[in-house]
Amino acid sequence: MESKNKITIIGAGLAGSLLPIFLSKKGYEVDVYERRPDMRVEDIGGGRSINLALSTRGIFALKEAGLYDEIKKISIPMFGRMIHPVEGELTFQRYGKDDTEYINAVSRSELNKALMNFAEKEDKVKFYFNERCRGLNFHEGEVLFQNEKTGVITNVTAERVIAADGAASAVRMEMLKMPRFNFSQEYENYGYKELIIPAGKDGSFQLEKNALHIWPRGSYMLIALPNLDGSFTCTLFLAYDFSLGGENSFEYLDTKEKLDSFFERKFPDAFALMPELEEDFFNHPTGSLITIKCYPWCHNDKVAMLGDACHAIVPFFGQGMNAAFEDCTTLKALMNEHDGNWDKIFHEYQKLRKPNADAIADLAQENFIEMRDLVATPRFQLKKKIEAELHKKYPERFVPKYSMVTFNRYPYETAMIRGKIQEEILQELTEDVNSVENVNWDKAHKLVANKLTEIDRA
Amino acid sequence: MESKNKITIIGAGLAGSLLPIFLSKKGYEVDVYERRPDMRVEDIGGGRSINLALSTRGIFALKEAGLYDEIKKISIPMFGRMIHPVEGELTFQRYGKDDTEYINAVSRSELNKALMNFAEKEDKVKFYFNERCRGLNFHEGEVLFQNEKTGVITNVTAERVIAADGAASAVRMEMLKMPRFNFSQEYENYGYKELIIPAGKDGSFQLEKNALHIWPRGSYMLIALPNLDGSFTCTLFLAYDFSLGGENSFEYLDTKEKLDSFFERKFPDAFALMPELEEDFFNHPTGSLITIKCYPWCHNDKVAMLGDACHAIVPFFGQGMNAAFEDCTTLKALMNEHDGNWDKIFHEYQKLRKPNADAIADLAQENFIEMRDLVATPRFQLKKKIEAELHKKYPERFVPKYSMVTFNRYPYETAMIRGKIQEEILQELTEDVNSVENVNWDKAHKLVANKLTEIDRA
Repeated sequence: MESKNKITIIGAGLAGSLLPIFLSKKGYEVDVYERRPDMRVEDIGGGRSINLALSTRGIFALKEAGLYDEIKKISIPMFGRMIHPVEGELTFQRYGKDDTEYINAVSRSELNKALMNFAEKEDKVKFYFNERCRGLNFHEGEVLFQNEKTGVITNVTAERVIAADGAASAVRMEMLKMPRFNFSQEYENYGYKELIIPAGKDGSFQLEKNALHIWPRGSYMLIALPNLDGSFTCTLFLAYDFSLGGENSFEYLDTKEKLDSFFERKFPDAFALMPELEEDFFNHPTGSLITIKCYPWCHNDKVAMLGDACHAIVPFFGQGMNAAFEDCTTLKALMNEHDGNWDKIFHEYQKLRKPNADAIADLAQENFIEMRDLVATPRFQLKKKIEAELHKKYPERFVPKYSMVTFNRYPYETAMIRGKIQEEILQELTEDVNSVENVNWDKAHKLVANKLTEIDRA
Repeated sequence: MESKNKITIIGAGLAGSLLPIFLSKKGYEVDVYERRPDMRVEDIGGGRSINLALSTRGIFALKEAGLYDEIKKISIPMFGRMIHPVEGELTFQRYGKDDTEYINAVSRSELNKALMNFAEKEDKVKFYFNERCRGLNFHEGEVLFQNEKTGVITNVTAERVIAADGAASAVRMEMLKMPRFNFSQEYENYGYKELIIPAGKDGSFQLEKNALHIWPRGSYMLIALPNLDGSFTCTLFLAYDFSLGGENSFEYLDTKEKLDSFFERKFPDAFALMPELEEDFFNHPTGSLITIKCYPWCHNDKVAMLGDACHAIVPFFGQGMNAAFEDCTTLKALMNEHDGNWDKIFHEYQKLRKPNADAIADLAQENFIEMRDLVATPRFQLKKKIEAELHKKYPERFVPKYSMVTFNRYPYETAMIRGKIQEEILQELTEDVNSVENVNWDKAHKLVANKLTEIDRA
């Protein structure tokens, strides 16, 4: 009967390292197979974003796992956006209502290592590295792995398989051949490049430490998040092709001269802090941005997918990891509710999560335009002020979309629907008003009152 | 230099058998590899729809190939829809303006065989059967085939590879792993089942021969197309799941009693003509309905996809084959325009075809609702009458959507855009009118006049 309690997880990324903690606490034996080497032993590098924005959903999951106190120590609070114009003064846009609401810059690899170490403390959890998934038998729960170093093939059988193998999921590729499997993958016409602002003297921060920095430039942008060592990881988001972005494109920026000229003109303050710009730019890979949607996520009680494997999203709402962790806490709650009935657990899991995964995918795509363009406009800033006022007046009914997503655990779909309703109200209130003093508050309250039923229904 | 002129086609379906004719006439050597046995020798059966609606685009392609006269002999003209209500009289809805406009029922397999025979007459075209594509090297134009009967692996190298391997395209599966390849596959929640109305005595037709028969039932439908031998191939389109369709679902109809009761109540006249209903229903596979969109369709000057491989659509506009043939005639025209410059040919081909493939995919999905539901409503019939009148008045400017798609070769995207504009006009004209005598023609002409710029732009 041992295999009844055995679960195979494919992928030891963030969610694939968190979930075993929940599973083992429920008495399951968990084997986690990871394609890459053990990042705690070997530096695996690669062009993935080096730090992440950990927010409420992710924190909730880490607390449920008993790991938050440890992660809090390696997190840097970011209280708002620091907007860098080409010329003139920086402006700070607070994310939340006050200093109690913030997001956290955290190193992806440190977080991943901490999760692995913590999971391994559970004696029912084992990690296997360099094991690439080569095939899957959906009915038998049988998975084929090939060792990347030795070439040895292993056939693993478990009662259940959970795929946490990311946007290029091997398991999803197998699902694609199943009848009636719906799937889409959509690339942005923009790529990204990671760059570094190193620490100053004695590890000092050369930009405000407790902020997410944005250089919004309309059709493209640079952002920067702080690291513990005083450096910032910057990410340039830019059109791939000259045909779309003109001189503001990766295709155009093919010499050091063009690159320097571009940065000097567009991001002068950042440029001054980037001694390694040319080296970083021409050595780091250009990352791509993909949105993946699919359904179903599960096959009977045998196979389930989670995180990027079934809902990869673009990074502009900082919710990729947070959403994947919420998959894990949803599974945990359903394990408690439907003890051992995995058919029910998987069925409910995908039904609950799918509309929310779709919603955060759409919200993240929309937020690219907000970050690269709108945040710099007076109207956006005015809307933010009105939104904050209305939130004070209606603390439960009118919650800023950013807050619903980031500082709360409203279902993403609710946040999307209510966000749209609120945006319509803000749009109407700012139609012919250009300062918060001139806002017609009577009209504002009437508009909100008209929408209360819709808001409550969402 | 021989390989410069060598092209590998994967798939000897309809488009994969037509294209070699065009290619060989331009001097290329063409090898066509087909996974299945030679249908001219072995009966390959399978649950695919047995007859098709050949219309103007497809006819144009067959004429270009010099094969239309032969196909015309095995085609049955269908001048309109014959609507079968549950009770009461049949009604006939003409497709075109008169008897010169019709679609053609033609046997898929006879058409395919004729194309293969015709292609083989060109001494530069060779077909290889039972060869399953197992892999593809995009840079080298190298394709791996495995023989389904012998297991033997063959490595084929050609200057160019064209994939016409259908909705489950092996080549597209490889494209899926390429950077920035956008892809979606979407299944309908409806499946289909092929059934037979056999010929009457002496091969007589038991329903009107020259019509496409529809039994529209709101959320589901039965259709029938005539065959040369006097029989009709019927297709039942029905929800898969009880949760969606209730008792009108494949899931529910799991006994002969339920099946008979369903047909007797819903399709009494067809039921009376279907002695083999139970056998057909429980022996034939339930087909699925898929829409596939992707981009790019080509890789440099090496690989291109066409037909279902890159744009599978649902059958409700009868345009799947017609659209695939239009891919072939587009390639033919571009070969003439850019002699031997395949980079240019493939680039232009995908740029020209993609928006039109998207449009016919959407139109086909919309037409399901029209066929299964709207055709039976008085308002639809009224709109058709007004549409016909406006078409007489504005023969070039106001062309019924069905005619633009079926009896003309307007780009599908143009048909979609103009169709929407026209539908808005028809919607407005039928808002509070229930017979053609009461139509406000002044208003109609004003509405059309207001939209002329938009119509001409589309």
